[in-house]
Amino acid sequence: MREKKSAVQCAIEEALSVIGDRWSLLIIRDVLRGVNRFDTLQESLQISRNILTRRLNSLEEAGVLVKAPVSPGARRMLYNATPKCIALAPTLVSLIEWGTHWSEKPNTRWARVIDKRTGTPVTVDLVGKDGEPVSLLDLDLEY
Amino acid sequence: MREKKSAVQCAIEEALSVIGDRWSLLIIRDVLRGVNRFDTLQESLQISRNILTRRLNSLEEAGVLVKAPVSPGARRMLYNATPKCIALAPTLVSLIEWGTHWSEKPNTRWARVIDKRTGTPVTVDLVGKDGEPVSLLDLDLEY
Repeated sequence: MREKKSAVQCAIEEALSVIGDRWSLLIIRDVLRGVNRFDTLQESLQISRNILTRRLNSLEEAGVLVKAPVSPGARRMLYNATPKCIALAPTLVSLIEWGTHWSEKPNTRWARVIDKRTGTPVTVDLVGKDGEPVSLLDLDLEY
Repeated sequence: MREKKSAVQCAIEEALSVIGDRWSLLIIRDVLRGVNRFDTLQESLQISRNILTRRLNSLEEAGVLVKAPVSPGARRMLYNATPKCIALAPTLVSLIEWGTHWSEKPNTRWARVIDKRTGTPVTVDLVGKDGEPVSLLDLDLEY
């Protein structure tokens, strides 16, 4: 009898099941830059309380955010980034790069990702096993 | 009179207005790996014809895909990647990395991103102005 092998899966689907909607990455961006109370998130994102509540709960369930009272015993909550949340930074940086480069709004001033130690810009690179850059055209997905 | 300055905007919103839904990045992944007919896309993604049609049209409008007949005069269409589409590869790679690393399905075999010239894995790095790696914890978003 042949052993049944599980099919190889693509982790993009896994990732998008957590952050594949219009709001989650924007919430994560804000939390990572220190906007992490319900009220300040709502103001920054101009999002309805209902949708924000739903997205925050689902990000908490997924282990991306952890909720804690603003001060011991307080009713108001802070949403803090977990390591799983911080690990999304390269995705955010690559989307900022892409959106900035390909935008059709020429007169817009775009926020820049910087290294806060030096104030200089940070970019995303594709790197091979030897540490050398890999061209976008040399990529393949191996199933 | 003070000159009115336009507010600085974050390009993530720009990017998510194009690819911030459950399907677009999966379609783009498939087109980039050569799955680019309507029928093969539908089979790969297990998506309804209606939704696939809508997403393909919107990606075409956004300049991410270009439609061309399978052969001259044919009715069946191919969807090809534009440079704007290829430029999303770092986003896809970072999501594959994140999904693979943080998945809670331990026995899954995940597809790997490789350099097709060598067959070795490709990763995404954050790089500063001097070419040196930047830590996730040293990032800031400058408005």
